[in-house]
Parts: sequence; C-alpha cells; structure tokens
Amino acid sequence: MARLAIIGADAAGMTAAATARRRDGDLEIVAFERGGRTSFSACGIPYFVAGLVAEAEDLVARSPDEHRANGIDVRTRHEVMSIDLSRRALTVRDLNARQESIEPFDELVIATGATATPPPIPGADATEPARTIDAGERLRDALDLGGHDAVVIGGGYIGLEMAEALAHQGRRVTLVDQAPQLMAGTLDADMAAHVQDAVQGKGIRVLLSVDVEEIELDAAGRPSAVRTSEGTIRADHVIVATGVKPAVDLARDAGLEIGETGALRVDDHQRCVGHDGIYAAGDCVESHHRLLDAAVNIQLGTHANKQGRVAGVNATGGDLAFPGVIGTAISRIGHREIARTGLSEREARDADIDVVASIVQTDTRAAYFPESAAMWVKLVVGAADGRLLGAQIVGAPTAGKRIDTLATAIWAGMTIDDLQWVDLAYAPPMSGVLDPVLIAARAATTTTAARA
Amino acid sequence: MARLAIIGADAAGMTAAATARRRDGDLEIVAFERGGRTSFSACGIPYFVAGLVAEAEDLVARSPDEHRANGIDVRTRHEVMSIDLSRRALTVRDLNARQESIEPFDELVIATGATATPPPIPGADATEPARTIDAGERLRDALDLGGHDAVVIGGGYIGLEMAEALAHQGRRVTLVDQAPQLMAGTLDADMAAHVQDAVQGKGIRVLLSVDVEEIELDAAGRPSAVRTSEGTIRADHVIVATGVKPAVDLARDAGLEIGETGALRVDDHQRCVGHDGIYAAGDCVESHHRLLDAAVNIQLGTHANKQGRVAGVNATGGDLAFPGVIGTAISRIGHREIARTGLSEREARDADIDVVASIVQTDTRAAYFPESAAMWVKLVVGAADGRLLGAQIVGAPTAGKRIDTLATAIWAGMTIDDLQWVDLAYAPPMSGVLDPVLIAARAATTTTAARA
Repeated sequence: MARLAIIGADAAGMTAAATARRRDGDLEIVAFERGGRTSFSACGIPYFVAGLVAEAEDLVARSPDEHRANGIDVRTRHEVMSIDLSRRALTVRDLNARQESIEPFDELVIATGATATPPPIPGADATEPARTIDAGERLRDALDLGGHDAVVIGGGYIGLEMAEALAHQGRRVTLVDQAPQLMAGTLDADMAAHVQDAVQGKGIRVLLSVDVEEIELDAAGRPSAVRTSEGTIRADHVIVATGVKPAVDLARDAGLEIGETGALRVDDHQRCVGHDGIYAAGDCVESHHRLLDAAVNIQLGTHANKQGRVAGVNATGGDLAFPGVIGTAISRIGHREIARTGLSEREARDADIDVVASIVQTDTRAAYFPESAAMWVKLVVGAADGRLLGAQIVGAPTAGKRIDTLATAIWAGMTIDDLQWVDLAYAPPMSGVLDPVLIAARAATTTTAARA
Repeated sequence: MARLAIIGADAAGMTAAATARRRDGDLEIVAFERGGRTSFSACGIPYFVAGLVAEAEDLVARSPDEHRANGIDVRTRHEVMSIDLSRRALTVRDLNARQESIEPFDELVIATGATATPPPIPGADATEPARTIDAGERLRDALDLGGHDAVVIGGGYIGLEMAEALAHQGRRVTLVDQAPQLMAGTLDADMAAHVQDAVQGKGIRVLLSVDVEEIELDAAGRPSAVRTSEGTIRADHVIVATGVKPAVDLARDAGLEIGETGALRVDDHQRCVGHDGIYAAGDCVESHHRLLDAAVNIQLGTHANKQGRVAGVNATGGDLAFPGVIGTAISRIGHREIARTGLSEREARDADIDVVASIVQTDTRAAYFPESAAMWVKLVVGAADGRLLGAQIVGAPTAGKRIDTLATAIWAGMTIDDLQWVDLAYAPPMSGVLDPVLIAARAATTTTAARA
C-alpha cells in the first residue's frame, strides 16, 4: 500500500491530507506535527489575544481526533528531523517519548509553514512573536498579569491587529515602525494615512521612521522598556510583529531548491522543482504572482488551503494547477477596513510598469442612509492599456470586501473602461447609486469618451 | 445657441443634464419636472416611511436651486403635455400658473421614469403606491394617525421593504402575494425560502398563492380590509407594491417606438430608434440584457444614472455606449441581505439555456468569529461550457455585496473553474479561509479535476 507523508498539520498540510483521503480510500496517510494541535487559524490569534475569541480551541478547525476519524494518521508532538529524498524516508522524533524513528513515504507534502524570527535587537528573544496558539496563550497569560504599557514593533497587518487588541483592553499602546508610513509592505503612503488616522483614533500612539535599538529587560528577564532612535518607551509588554520567514531549513537540508524569496521553489502543481512525488504548499513556498510574472512568498491561509488541495490532488494521480496569486489581502482595525489587491503604485514602479493612479473618497452606502460612512478607493491602472493592475481600499464597515470585485476584474484582465459599466448591485442600505468601485473606475478612466 | 430639453428631473434626466453641462458650457439646458423636487431617491422611500431616514429632503441628492446654480434651467411643477418631433418642440403646462407654452429643442432626453399602476381590483385606487416622495409623505402621515393592521400586496423588493418598515414600527403586517413564493420575479423558490424565513422571523405573516379580490373601504373612503381568495384580512393600511410600469404615454403619443417590454426602444447610445437627437434613459427605456441578448425593462437608479450619462454625452456630440445589464439587484430585509445577478435557474430554463445549479450554505466570516452567521449562495452555470450565468445570495450582514464579485465574473465571461481560484480577500473578521464565493464555485465545478 502506498504511503503519503505530510510534514506540518495546519491549513496546507491537512487540506492536502483530506483531499488525498477523499480521492483515494486505500492510501496510507500520515501527518507529522511538532505542536500539539492541528488545523488551527494563526490569523485568529490577535482576536484570541484580544478576547474576541474566547478559547484557543475555537481556532482549531479540525482536531487530531477528527482527522483520525477521517482516516488520517495524525502524529502530534512529532518533529521531522530530516528528509532523505533518495531513500524516501523521514527521520521523526517523538517529542514525548523522546525517541526517533524512520518513516518511509512514497509521496511527501511539505507544509512546514513560517516562523517568526526575532529582529537582531538585544532583548528581542525575550518577546513573544504570537505566531502559534501556544505563544498566543502565553501572551494572554502574561497580559492577564496586568501591566498598562505595551509596545508593538512593526506596523503591518499583524502589528496593527495586535495593537488594536491591546488598546481594546484599555492598555496604553505605542506602535513603532522603521518605515515612514504604516503598512509599508501593503499600502501606498497616501492610503496608509487613512489607516494611521484610524489607529490614532483608537488612542494608539504611532511612531514612524523609528529604529528600535534594544528591548530592555528587568531582573526577571521580562521586557521593561523599548529603547529607540527617538527615546525610550516604558513597556510592560512588547510584541514583535516583524520578520516572519518561510520555514525551509528541513527542505534546504534535504537538498530541495530555495528561491530568491527564501521560500521553497515549486511548479504550478506544487511539485518541488525537479523532484517527482515531493510537494510543498502554504507559507513555506513561493507562489507565482500573475501580474509581476515572478515568484513571491505570501503567507496567507487562503493560499495554503488552495495549494494544499492542489498538492493532495496531484499526490494522488490527479492533474491540477494552482494558477497563482495577485496579492489580495484584507484586515480590520477597529471599525476601519483595509484591503488591497494587485500592485500598489510603489510595486508597479519597482517593477518598471508604467501606471496611472487615482483616489476617490466616497460613501459606503447611500449618502442619506444612517449607517453610511467614508471610504477611499485607490486604483492603479496600466498607462499603456488601461488595464486595472491594483486597488487599495480603506474605509468604514462594508468597504473592504469590495476589494474582491476589483480582484476579480484584475484576474479577468479587465480595463477600467470595462469596469466602470459592470452591473454592480445598488440599494440604499448597501451602496450609493453608483457603487464606490464604479465611481473609482470612472474617476480613473483616461480616455476622453469614458471620462465624459 | 443650441437647446437641450429634458423631460423628468430624477436620476436619468438630471445625470444627462449635468453631463451635458460639464461637456458644453454654452449649451442651453432646460429640464421640465411635473413634481416639485429633483434628483430624489425613489429607492429610499421605504426607509423614509420606516423613519430610518428622517426627512423627505434627505432623499434629494440635488435640489432645483443646486441644479440652477450649475447652469441648468430646472422648471418644477411643469408638465410636458406633448412632444412634436417634426417641429422639435414640447407643449409644456405650468401647473402653478395654469398656462401652456411651446418650448423648442434641438436635442431631447426623455426620462419620464415609471409609474405605479394600481392592480385591477376594486378599491385599489384608494391605496398609496409610494413611488414618489409625495406619496411617501402622505403614507407616513396616514401611518402617524395610528392603525395597527397593515397589509402589503406584492412580495417583491419594494413590498418586502415596506412590510419590514411597517413591522419595524410595531404594526401587525400581512404580506400577500399571488405567486407560490416570495420574490418570484427575482429569486428561485429554493433561495426565496430563506427570505421567507427572515420575513416571518420579523413577525410578518406571509400568505402565498393568494389572490386579492377587493380592497374594502370605509365610509371615508379609506381601506378597512383586504378580501382575498383565502379570506378577509383587517387592514388600517394597505400598500400596493405591484405593477410598476414604464411611463411612456408621452413618447408613444409622439410616435416613438415602444418595445415588447412596454418600455421605449433605444439603441446602445440611448437614442430612440430612428430619431436623431432624441434620447431616452432610465426606468422608461429598454436595456440590453447581455446574457439573454434581449431587451428588458429593469427600473433601477444605477442604470438610470449610467444611461443618463450616456445620453448626456451623445447629446453633446460625444460617442458613448451603454453596454447593457445582467440583472443585478440587492436588498436588505431586517438583518437578511438578498442579492442576485445574471440569470436565475427559472430564467435560464425559460430562455432554453441548459444550466446546472448548486447551492452552498456557509458562514459570512471565519466560523469562530463572533459576528459570523449563515449565508447561502446559489450559482447557475452553463451546462455546455461551465460559464457562470447567474448567482443568488441570501444571508446575514456582509453576505449580499459579494454578488458584485459574481457579477464581475459573469460580466467577464468567467467559468466556475476560473472563479474558484481567484485571489479573494481573507481575514477572519471578513470571511472564512475560502470566501463563500470560492466555496460556491468549487461546489459548482463539474469537471473531475476541479471537483477533487
């Protein structure tokens, strides 16, 4: 009987396992997981820390026992120490029994995810990166002990969500970022300004263009302050939300190819390049960016799920391709929704793509409707052909998910001249007579007739 | 100096006027409006009746004086009595001064909208159709006088919104429809069942497959009961929400062509067929349905706005086409959102298009997220080519506007195999790891590989 081994039992690994199980009832499927849980939502951790999600177990989509009931041999607290590609076997350490075994496989799915790497700052090792449930639980325990002052280092999605969570608990929060804007990897500066307004509106102090020089520790080895290029900030809690890297040491040691992004190189069938029967999926792999026509490493549950399915299909004799990504992402900070897709203006410039950008401010609903509030839409358009290449949205509740309409338009290769006419839904509680997407497309049109 | 005349000063007419003004500063633009207001949102009337929108004036996007300040000669309380196409002149009656004048034009935009026509039932004339602000104000005044029992006739969007508004005020509401389901013109029966659940959950009694035989009046000529094929229902208030017809008498009398739908025939430049310089836009015209390749009459502010712009551009020497509609619509009844686009299963069958349909139930957000709640997505897919042809959504807040993603996919001609891979936004407060649109597309895929 053939044997499929999976390394890592979260979104990518367990989607691969479940897909393979559904397609092949006879296959032996074994999944090795270093931690104690399976299929948990790392993206949910900030909400768990904030107390919006009560129990850590709520973040578990499917427990080890549920996977076992589905015919998948899940081994938690089992760490894969090495992969032997020529012998097609893993060396696996049982962390409880403290013993190693050799586990053969016919096909392998590597889904080792990503790990937070503390920045090279004295004291950073003493902070919690909050990438795992265990870390989230430790952080929640530490927060339960009190301490009014918190510093969050890093103004990306995770940093903002953590800052929001801590402010929500009534703490005094300072958010520090090296860049001159928030969400520098995600939004252009003009749109990030609206995020900063919202973050400051929650009472969070934002310090930009600031280098963190040291996390000062007390006698017990716990953080007491953050020393920066702009002075020292008292801190009972320090959250580092920077530098999450694909976890590829195991794969690299086995001789698998690592791309320029630092993630595993795979083809569109999630096959490790040059190695039949060896697949990889999720946060540890490169994805093809359809607009840049280049490899990127984007760590997101939705890609992990899709890629895991592709790996599971192909590992069981199927033929399914993952068609790539366009960099769509969304978040919510308090009542402000933040979303983006495709290329930012800066990304387009960096890729030498000639673009025209425009921003509109509009309302989430009919202007007279009680719940209506402000939102901004930025469109990035190919200067040569008028094709929509990117979009950013910041605004009040219901603003954000409109990014999906724009992502679909980009995916389909639509021009803004096309987009401005699409029959989008109108009713006063849901949008103005022209949806903000249409208003933005119209504002962005560059041909004379369309501009009329 | 050339003169552009507009008949009807709501969405279509005033968008045409404003567009023409922007493009041609010298043109004389005159707009004749029978009522006293301009640019009001008829779609907002149920919310005004419900008290969610406080003042009738809140529904006015732009007042006559604001239009005048923009260089448009708006004449309210002026009714156009006839159009003389050969002499290019209108006979206009000043309803206040009670005198008529002849108004010449070089170009004309007909934007006469739609009128509610009472059903051929004894007593129906005594009810308020609530299509105009004036009628909405009279209705609100009547409701202010008290009266606990209300009957709404017609289970489409407007009927449901009115029923919801009346129930919201604590009244006992009965909704009556001839059809065996709610929203028969909009949703398939399987999806309408979820709407009915929500409506009944608001305490509204729903009577289906019921014929209304008479609206009984009291001595003062006010409704007192509704006699139906299933018995008589006490009613202090009766709202008729059926049979809104394009207002085309004026155009027909002038010799302009009326299509099979009962609306004015126009080409894709909003030109009345065979008449240079005569345009029509909004609720009174036919639109091209891109999927049916047939003319339809869909009365919706968003189409009126777009078509008004097209008319305004072409009336000032431009060349702009309205690319048609695909039947997108949305509404909200209490906390349940209802949306549709493209063809329903029934519409496809009626048009002899071979389709496969599927429904998924899923969550609006990550299942563990506190605000997450149920939603349903139905997809209608071409059996021959796997192209998405239609979609319906019913569900909790944030469910509905996902219809725009599906509308964009239909507009672009995407197959469900394509759609299931689109990079849609994921974060726990906004969707599960796979957005409901992707889950629905995946469930609908019919090829073996894609189904894996």
